[in-house]
Amino acid sequence: MAKMLVIYRRPVDPEAFTRHYFQTHIPLARAIPGLRKYEVSQGSVTTIAGSPDIHMIGTLYFDDMEAIQKAFASPEGRAAAADRQLYAPDASGVQMYLFDDGDV
Amino acid sequence: MAKMLVIYRRPVDPEAFTRHYFQTHIPLARAIPGLRKYEVSQGSVTTIAGSPDIHMIGTLYFDDMEAIQKAFASPEGRAAAADRQLYAPDASGVQMYLFDDGDV
Repeated sequence: MAKMLVIYRRPVDPEAFTRHYFQTHIPLARAIPGLRKYEVSQGSVTTIAGSPDIHMIGTLYFDDMEAIQKAFASPEGRAAAADRQLYAPDASGVQMYLFDDGDV
Repeated sequence: MAKMLVIYRRPVDPEAFTRHYFQTHIPLARAIPGLRKYEVSQGSVTTIAGSPDIHMIGTLYFDDMEAIQKAFASPEGRAAAADRQLYAPDASGVQMYLFDDGDV
């Protein structure tokens, strides 16, 4: 299983962020081909180490890294990526990581 | 399901980090009461936004946030936390976040 992990810093306007995320971004992201599962943090994120101002964490699951590459290259993937730049531009401190995951 | 997410920056000595992580830390962490699943990133982590030097990402799954609190308060949880300070002290740029997760 491969994951796309998206870690959002606290936005300037949390209500506007939440509205955009749930009304616009989730429907766009759910249309991405190859998406197997999509999770979003519920309630507050507790920091043990690192940034004390994390607003939300999203995790998108795909079969493997090749599926993520294909998903990103698709029109639906590009639309979701463009939308993310609207409510959480790179300069907002958002973190996005792609990786294969395995049980230990 | 609640998660503990641990994001490690590239260590000064990646080989020593990996040896410590797999030989010492994983056995300690797997002994934590209430741990349901434990995943570690396989191979490299690709950065789309954020730190370009992420070494590894671990995800520990528990039933809920209360289970995480109990896990951390246990002797096994404290031992794993103390061990983590040895190979990835807070000053190394490690990030650790706790949160409830839900499907969307």
